[in-house]
Amino acid sequence: MPRKLVVLTQGFARKLNAKTASSLLRYRPKQVVAVLDDQEAGQTAQEVFGVGGDIPIVPSLDDVKGADTLLIGIATPGGKLPEAMRAIILDAIGRGMNVESGLHQFLCDDPEIQAAAVKAGVTLNDVRKNNERDVSQRNDINDTCLRIQTVGHDCSVGKMVVAIELSEALKKAGRDAKFVATGQTGIMIEGSGIPIDCVVADFINGACEKLVLQNQHHEIMVVEGQASLVQPRYSSVTLGLYHGCVPHGLVMCYEMGRGQVYGMDHLPIPPLKDIMRVYEQTADHLYPCKIIGVAMNTKNTRDDTAVEAERQRLKDELGLPVCDVIRHGPDELVEATLKLQKELRQQGRLK
Amino acid sequence: MPRKLVVLTQGFARKLNAKTASSLLRYRPKQVVAVLDDQEAGQTAQEVFGVGGDIPIVPSLDDVKGADTLLIGIATPGGKLPEAMRAIILDAIGRGMNVESGLHQFLCDDPEIQAAAVKAGVTLNDVRKNNERDVSQRNDINDTCLRIQTVGHDCSVGKMVVAIELSEALKKAGRDAKFVATGQTGIMIEGSGIPIDCVVADFINGACEKLVLQNQHHEIMVVEGQASLVQPRYSSVTLGLYHGCVPHGLVMCYEMGRGQVYGMDHLPIPPLKDIMRVYEQTADHLYPCKIIGVAMNTKNTRDDTAVEAERQRLKDELGLPVCDVIRHGPDELVEATLKLQKELRQQGRLK
Repeated sequence: MPRKLVVLTQGFARKLNAKTASSLLRYRPKQVVAVLDDQEAGQTAQEVFGVGGDIPIVPSLDDVKGADTLLIGIATPGGKLPEAMRAIILDAIGRGMNVESGLHQFLCDDPEIQAAAVKAGVTLNDVRKNNERDVSQRNDINDTCLRIQTVGHDCSVGKMVVAIELSEALKKAGRDAKFVATGQTGIMIEGSGIPIDCVVADFINGACEKLVLQNQHHEIMVVEGQASLVQPRYSSVTLGLYHGCVPHGLVMCYEMGRGQVYGMDHLPIPPLKDIMRVYEQTADHLYPCKIIGVAMNTKNTRDDTAVEAERQRLKDELGLPVCDVIRHGPDELVEATLKLQKELRQQGRLK
Repeated sequence: MPRKLVVLTQGFARKLNAKTASSLLRYRPKQVVAVLDDQEAGQTAQEVFGVGGDIPIVPSLDDVKGADTLLIGIATPGGKLPEAMRAIILDAIGRGMNVESGLHQFLCDDPEIQAAAVKAGVTLNDVRKNNERDVSQRNDINDTCLRIQTVGHDCSVGKMVVAIELSEALKKAGRDAKFVATGQTGIMIEGSGIPIDCVVADFINGACEKLVLQNQHHEIMVVEGQASLVQPRYSSVTLGLYHGCVPHGLVMCYEMGRGQVYGMDHLPIPPLKDIMRVYEQTADHLYPCKIIGVAMNTKNTRDDTAVEAERQRLKDELGLPVCDVIRHGPDELVEATLKLQKELRQQGRLK
């Protein structure tokens, strides 16, 4: 039975870090009974998040019927629980609801919340909690599955969305494609995956290799990327994912108009072309990898003419397909993926 | 009071992963009462490890007097406790000794060992245990401290030894230099540092930045590197350390004759020159960084002529100082460090 969710954003609905909420609304709307946020109450999800249709935003759990799980719908830098959410979580537990969280600060390590959950007999599901302890072996990676990974120029630019849209479009084209989740929101949507950014450092690459081994019976895997090789805070996660999954091809994701690092406004992001070069140069020497296309994120741009101008400029500059998977659809990236598969088969790198 | 150590290697003395033991013997011999290893018993530390002089290797704790701490002297891949060591650890605890370990598998999480320690009233010191939860800010890095980092072509090539030898030599030359430990053995020697390879992924870069902030009142810091950007298992740790510490200069460490990846004999290591290029290209774009010298590790080579030939060949090829800090001393690297300091001051990047 799918869970019946109340998605909690409480004051964060219009901030970038409500991406967990908006992704659940986009990909699992049937599971969402309501969004809880007293600052946006009375509106619909569609009005605030641009997705989710008529799902109501409510001010209190009193206004919700038939939900069984409270899901924390935000991702804070450092993964800390905003104190404003504590009372709501305790309220939900008191009403017999389970609580699901993707924060680094685990609910089950919080004495007050843990005690309340035990007393109420409900489950705390900390999606990032893991005990990964395997190192890479590089013995059993097969040569039948095409491995595509999304990468980015920064955090929160849509790497998960692009990976989901691309894998869904490949399925519609009759291919056996699999979205491989590597972050808490992706795992909440897909129901499987490893929260790579919460794995102990020495085991990041190994955990990613395990994802490859678990999923390589598919024809094509599309692995959700994390952060960026040029992200000052999280670049280690990105490289571990890159070397652990040893993809054949990358889709470069970027947000139109973003010039400064997410959460670090004093730091400029390097030019896209430079970043793309760093990615290709940093591939494992035994697994050469190239960028097959660019995914624009244009959600903050209303000006269609500007979007199309930038799209054309990038196509000319890079000689690659460029699209926003939401605005334009992912067809160009599907083509690029199948073209790479064909090339690698001709070269004998893929069977 | 410095601790009085029995260093446990039990069957691992002649393997590469006894590097914790050999480093303690090299840098803290006065603290080591004995080495415990029944397969090497009767010999001296010097005979087995090439360092440690007359420190005896004993078959049992019965043969040791006056020690207060058992120190696990090995680093296993994955950081697991060899089962053969369990009985010895319990024996030591029963004798009232503390136990110090740098393994990933924490002693304090082992019910049997933890219970025995509580009963005996002794301390378990898991050096890798940490709760790092800070992300990088890039706000407070100063422009007075020169940051040097050792990097490598693989694991276990001497990055810690080179960092210690270089910082000690800089001190002898009258400079205010500081060795900054980032691994369990370095921390055991220096008494401070952060075990970077055991930090949760999202906080690796931040933990490394913290080391910079804690130590940048010195004129020069020499940061112990970890693994390698081309190490299939641990490259994520390397990049986090690199972007977290944003060094001005790197010392490239490699082991003469090593062609295959440590612990992964089926994988070749790329050519040194290619690896050096990857390091320079992967530097943060706001903190350009260059390799200032090469540290050879020639401990497995008895042939002096071959060593000197390779040294000269590399000097010619790379146009950089090249030395083995143990065999030749670190003077060339001291010169290269001071030359970089002068250059950066002329460019205005350092005050």
